[in-house]
Amino acid sequence: MSIMEQNTDIVFNFSAGPAGLPKAVMQQAQNELLNWQGLGTSVMEISHRSKEFIKVAEEAEQDLRDLLNIPENYKVLFCQGGARAQFAAVPLNLLGEAKTATYIDGGYWAESAVAEAKKYCEPDVFDAKTEIDGKLAVKPASEWEIAPDAAYVHFCPNETIDGIEINDLPVTDKPIVADMSSTILSREIDVSKYGVIYAGAQKNIGPSGISIVIVRDDLLGMAKQELPSILDFTVLAEKESMFNTPPTFAWYLSGLVFKWLKAEGGVKSIEKVNRAKAKLLYDFIDQSDFYRNGIHSANRSLMNVPFQLAKPELDSTFLELADAKGLKSLKGHRAVGGMRASIYNAMTLEGVQALVDFMKEFEEKYA
Amino acid sequence: MSIMEQNTDIVFNFSAGPAGLPKAVMQQAQNELLNWQGLGTSVMEISHRSKEFIKVAEEAEQDLRDLLNIPENYKVLFCQGGARAQFAAVPLNLLGEAKTATYIDGGYWAESAVAEAKKYCEPDVFDAKTEIDGKLAVKPASEWEIAPDAAYVHFCPNETIDGIEINDLPVTDKPIVADMSSTILSREIDVSKYGVIYAGAQKNIGPSGISIVIVRDDLLGMAKQELPSILDFTVLAEKESMFNTPPTFAWYLSGLVFKWLKAEGGVKSIEKVNRAKAKLLYDFIDQSDFYRNGIHSANRSLMNVPFQLAKPELDSTFLELADAKGLKSLKGHRAVGGMRASIYNAMTLEGVQALVDFMKEFEEKYA
Repeated sequence: MSIMEQNTDIVFNFSAGPAGLPKAVMQQAQNELLNWQGLGTSVMEISHRSKEFIKVAEEAEQDLRDLLNIPENYKVLFCQGGARAQFAAVPLNLLGEAKTATYIDGGYWAESAVAEAKKYCEPDVFDAKTEIDGKLAVKPASEWEIAPDAAYVHFCPNETIDGIEINDLPVTDKPIVADMSSTILSREIDVSKYGVIYAGAQKNIGPSGISIVIVRDDLLGMAKQELPSILDFTVLAEKESMFNTPPTFAWYLSGLVFKWLKAEGGVKSIEKVNRAKAKLLYDFIDQSDFYRNGIHSANRSLMNVPFQLAKPELDSTFLELADAKGLKSLKGHRAVGGMRASIYNAMTLEGVQALVDFMKEFEEKYA
Repeated sequence: MSIMEQNTDIVFNFSAGPAGLPKAVMQQAQNELLNWQGLGTSVMEISHRSKEFIKVAEEAEQDLRDLLNIPENYKVLFCQGGARAQFAAVPLNLLGEAKTATYIDGGYWAESAVAEAKKYCEPDVFDAKTEIDGKLAVKPASEWEIAPDAAYVHFCPNETIDGIEINDLPVTDKPIVADMSSTILSREIDVSKYGVIYAGAQKNIGPSGISIVIVRDDLLGMAKQELPSILDFTVLAEKESMFNTPPTFAWYLSGLVFKWLKAEGGVKSIEKVNRAKAKLLYDFIDQSDFYRNGIHSANRSLMNVPFQLAKPELDSTFLELADAKGLKSLKGHRAVGGMRASIYNAMTLEGVQALVDFMKEFEEKYA
């Protein structure tokens, strides 16, 4: 075995995004990169309007519908611009005549959505963050205050940087809008409870450069004139996400990920694996005096596990040794410091076990 | 040799976009898809803020600057949303207090830009299309009327559908804005004469899902409040095109294309090849009574060559036989009918020769 092959075999990628993709998907993509379906070209070198690509697009949508059990009265849109584009698209599509919308603030990404929404309305922000026993937590949804004149209620169920997950839903009759970039497809959800779900692909769906919007069809048709057409849900729905040339390769890869996830047993099955992965890591952290996670147990993210060492001066040693062991991209976000293990769907239990084994060794040697 | 390999060898891809990419680029991408730079992961599975990806991003920008000789006082932005996003971004970034901008109408894409601009101003449209000797042509720039209060003058130098190329520049002191999606990097241009150049990647740059904006820096800082931040030239310039997670794989592939083009001798060299390719095809069409191109010689596109058969009832036979010979994606746009050979930078002279040989055979048999 060559050094390169060895490298490939032992790598576990904990990147927060763009994140690792399932190995089987990447191998298929490699195999057919030069000659897709016997056409003699790559899937990225054909027209998005060819019958071959239309089939890719339609299957990807249907597979996503199957995975999330998306009701008929929801449109599935494939967009560009990531979640940040949706920070503008949501108010411009949904405000109608309203002057405000309620934003539940659970951290950095919710706040980034607020900052963009300020261009278009006066967002009503409810700070849901709190502290319980010295740990960061989120107030229960029953306490969230929602403005009576809000056009919708926006929240971000997974805050990737702090490693917070919100399992509650806003208690409201207004349309619920969720930025699910880091949690979509990781656990079961009831789509029918939402008005709009959106997500950048680069965590649980595919490569960066494509994003998904799932929108209830009664929310179409309200866009403000100043909304660029490429972000207009109604235009995208009418044109089946081909108003402009879509990111075809990213769409194709996302479709492969959906097929992989179905073969793995779907969202219900992967949720079990995800819970096992997260439990393994959090349990290890909690029994240790050397590692610490600052999030209250009720709000710990299944996908992003930040942790700090008791001796921050050892951070760089930890990262170097982990990297040498093939445990990649563990550096925490600069706002939180320390480490962050992102354990999205493509991360295996074996990978988390390898991380825990390494953390144990490291603690024994350096604590 | 297996049938598949044979297929790969003989395919010439005339797709109008997403278009064929250089074979050497695709081979490199395939080779390193699972293990890029020995990291044990794909380039699409690492953080856009990692030192490895930053290097990809910076080199791509520098290579593009070298290829187009972009002056220092221009920013190069890597965006999402294609040219259609720029149809909104341009007025929202450049109008300032102005109420209009002049749009030179040379065809479908210029008109699409006008339709979007109407959301933000009252575009002043100059119809530059004319007919000379029964052929579609574009009036000389000296005749283009430009509104005195226009914030800028927009035109589309290559109309992909009709196969029109405009070699003139507007005669004006106002900022010139050009949609170069289908002509960028195909021939030499003097960037210093433009205010903004933009282009979707999926013709001469890379895969769909990424686009390039080249903007003179004195045009920054004028964005309207309602402009979504992801389309704000100033925000993108400040954040070095990483305000949101960029489409990293598309950026990487574009960088490989730039390196390939430099190795081929740069824009000056490829322009010679492009002129030879176009001449070969147009000369053949012109000497034939069976094939016809409806564009006046002064405005024939170097990149997109539509042609019609004297017997349109043979269109589908032509396409089937061409496809069987490995000459792919020759069907013309439905607005024009007939055939269209898109012969972007990645198309070789050998490929155009193969097309001409086939057209000759077909004519002999069916005319």
